[in-house]
Amino acid sequence: MTSTDEKWLEKKISRRSMLKITGASAAGAAVLASGMGGVAKAFGFDILEDDATAQNKVKFYGKHQSGITTDTTTHVYFASLNVLVGSQSELQELFKTWTPLAVRLMNGEQLEEASPGVFTPPDDTGEAAGLDASNLTLTFGVGPSLFANKKFGLSAKRPSELNELPHFPKDQIADQFSGGDICIQACADDPQVAFHAVRNLVRAASGKVTLKWTQTGFTSTPKEKDKKATPRNLFAFKDGTVNPSPKSDIDMNEVVWVQPNESQSWMASGTYLVVRKIQMHLETWDRTSLKAQEDTFGRHRDSGAPIGKKNEFDEVDLDSKDATGNPHISADSHMALARKVKDRILRRGFSYASGLIDETGAYDAGLLFISFQKNPQQFINIQNALGRADKLNEYITHRGSGVFACFPGVQKGSYIGEKLFSAF
Amino acid sequence: MTSTDEKWLEKKISRRSMLKITGASAAGAAVLASGMGGVAKAFGFDILEDDATAQNKVKFYGKHQSGITTDTTTHVYFASLNVLVGSQSELQELFKTWTPLAVRLMNGEQLEEASPGVFTPPDDTGEAAGLDASNLTLTFGVGPSLFANKKFGLSAKRPSELNELPHFPKDQIADQFSGGDICIQACADDPQVAFHAVRNLVRAASGKVTLKWTQTGFTSTPKEKDKKATPRNLFAFKDGTVNPSPKSDIDMNEVVWVQPNESQSWMASGTYLVVRKIQMHLETWDRTSLKAQEDTFGRHRDSGAPIGKKNEFDEVDLDSKDATGNPHISADSHMALARKVKDRILRRGFSYASGLIDETGAYDAGLLFISFQKNPQQFINIQNALGRADKLNEYITHRGSGVFACFPGVQKGSYIGEKLFSAF
Ligand code: HEM
Ligand code: HEM
Repeated sequence: MTSTDEKWLEKKISRRSMLKITGASAAGAAVLASGMGGVAKAFGFDILEDDATAQNKVKFYGKHQSGITTDTTTHVYFASLNVLVGSQSELQELFKTWTPLAVRLMNGEQLEEASPGVFTPPDDTGEAAGLDASNLTLTFGVGPSLFANKKFGLSAKRPSELNELPHFPKDQIADQFSGGDICIQACADDPQVAFHAVRNLVRAASGKVTLKWTQTGFTSTPKEKDKKATPRNLFAFKDGTVNPSPKSDIDMNEVVWVQPNESQSWMASGTYLVVRKIQMHLETWDRTSLKAQEDTFGRHRDSGAPIGKKNEFDEVDLDSKDATGNPHISADSHMALARKVKDRILRRGFSYASGLIDETGAYDAGLLFISFQKNPQQFINIQNALGRADKLNEYITHRGSGVFACFPGVQKGSYIGEKLFSAF
Repeated sequence: MTSTDEKWLEKKISRRSMLKITGASAAGAAVLASGMGGVAKAFGFDILEDDATAQNKVKFYGKHQSGITTDTTTHVYFASLNVLVGSQSELQELFKTWTPLAVRLMNGEQLEEASPGVFTPPDDTGEAAGLDASNLTLTFGVGPSLFANKKFGLSAKRPSELNELPHFPKDQIADQFSGGDICIQACADDPQVAFHAVRNLVRAASGKVTLKWTQTGFTSTPKEKDKKATPRNLFAFKDGTVNPSPKSDIDMNEVVWVQPNESQSWMASGTYLVVRKIQMHLETWDRTSLKAQEDTFGRHRDSGAPIGKKNEFDEVDLDSKDATGNPHISADSHMALARKVKDRILRRGFSYASGLIDETGAYDAGLLFISFQKNPQQFINIQNALGRADKLNEYITHRGSGVFACFPGVQKGSYIGEKLFSAF
């Protein structure tokens, strides 16, 4: 062994000793060192803590999962997974394994090597080394297919509202962008941090899950003075103007968070995530007059104001008419139709623009629509209201789809999804 | 006309008046208003200025194009286009049209409407409104196919060094990620700004160009104290350690900038861009021991130091041996092979990770390798040295390719590529 090799070894050992001392890290490390399962329980997950000193860090523990009411970040890496393991207990182990890793990823920590040797693959894939937590959030959910799969014995736990979404008029959903047993929504202000998180979670479950589909997205928030303005989608319209306020408990309890007795008991404080990969036909849009664009949404493009009003947050009056007696906002505009039903949802979407759609040479661009609601029916009702009538239909095509039950938040000492397995 | 419509009109008119007054904007606006060609020359391009007051702005005018020695930004949107027009003069018009637009995009300005009506499509697609210049750079180049196309009458202007890249061992180049008559490399610290730039340039040339292929990429630069550290690629290795310094004129004149008489005269102060879309097989890599990973590159992963050394920038000694007499750095490591030839290139690549490769479920992830050199042969020589031997080959597959002659920089009053058409 050369002196350099020795130095290398020393470094590994001292890193390990450090892990031993801090304890916190050791739990995660031990899980990693021994593969999934087994050790996790012995160590107990409560050792891992949110690191209060970490830069740009969102808390992992809490009543609710992160990434739902958390401020939107610039990037998302959304992943849908299928589960390969054959039993409920193995599924449970999967979430146990992920828990300390999720804490550490959200702390911006490396999933450090536990072994001093260099003859094994590193525990952390390493590309996020030196980057901070970047406001990483991780949101885990389970899809209807997980409950339908007999080997997990969870059919009695399926919330009656968790079903595959119906086919909507004009849908062109491709299997390659749809469904999945589990979703992980990783949001961060750095694209490499978001990707790193999913990659390492999937890797820690190697052989136990497989990737079904993934999608990256971004959203750029303009600054207006010191305030964050509403971001614009790729049709240049402010997107998210009328949205329940993530800061308001009243709004969130009404719209997003499942209340006790509103669903299966394990879903209390959880929510449902609907994801739609919606292609936006930029080429067609870009040939459309500003007037027709504004009529499509029922809002002005630049200001975001309802047509006939001046400012973005001016009250919407669907009955207001211009001098010729025509309504300012047409009845088949996206906004008018979306308001036809009383249901509300929390929209938290991202744009995507990556490559071309091979056959057509059109931009592979659009909206990774993500909404949270206490019942997927809220989304379904709105989507049905949009239906065939929505003027927007001419410019978009729904190509991917998923619905997932997102667990409540994790308490220290517990693990992601614990209530799904324990609650009655 | 309602009072609201009047207000809308007023707003448009006052915006137009403003454009008239500033003059600078009017040139661009006029080009937009009248479609491509014709007006551009009448107005003259010299009216448009780099806006010294713009936030996070890179200069458009200069001896060299931006995006080559400019500090790397977080995002790239790389686009390769084919030209549809049928004559040299129309091709020339294309670049004339793009020039004022490029200045304005790099100023972070909107390509404002010139017409007060709302019955035409807006001149700017609008999604970057409110975002600043975000260090946008635009780099334009022309590929060998443009010179091969008889209708442009440019065959005598083709630099003898500009040829389609040869087939390299193990290449699996797909036509859908290859070639193109023109490239636009848009780099920015905001993904929406980079995309917006390409979208609006392509749109301003609607019917005259068509998108051949595009690729997004990102690179996350860790901060070490106040210094920028070398970013890591998706194999977690610091990438860019040994690179000629973009700040050194000596390096750049030797490696990157075509000197007078080194190529066709129109290429003086220009350079050649090589782009390779290289898939990195993350799944295989992540199962590989740290030792094998480090041997692949000839460097340590965490520190970036040459094997046998301690720090990233320690001198590389290919002959140094460990106690058992084995070389620290194996002869078929990526680094050792890349150093076999004396040629140098300026590497300025980005990672990509977007979706899965359908058939396999593997990550569609890798390196959008981009290098600049005064002669593509520099790249070819290095790639040939890597050849079949490079240990890295086991973990990567080249899937896309392109080579483009990037014009020298634009002087005020001139336009992108002017010398290609005027020089003898
Ligand atoms: C690419 C597809 C879509 C685009 C570009 C889009 C864009 C917009 C825009 C610009 C607005 C007005 C500003 C705002 O209040 O945020 C809006 C409002 C809204 N959208 Fe969409 N949307 C899309 C798809 C959907 C879908 C699939 C749903 C749900 C089924 C939906 C539900 C809503 C709701 C509920 C509102 C608020 C309406 C109100 O109460 O005023 N949108 N959308
Ligand atoms: C996915 C593909 C590739 C990866 C992951 C990769 C990664 C790396 C890494 C980690 C280094 C060492 C650190 C540094 O000096 O930057 C390096 C060095 C280098 N690479 Fe690559 N590289 C790839 C492809 C290429 C290609 C296609 C070329 C050119 C044909 C190339 C040329 C070089 C050169 C010239 C060096 C510097 C060698 C020296 O002088 O020390 N690389 N690369």
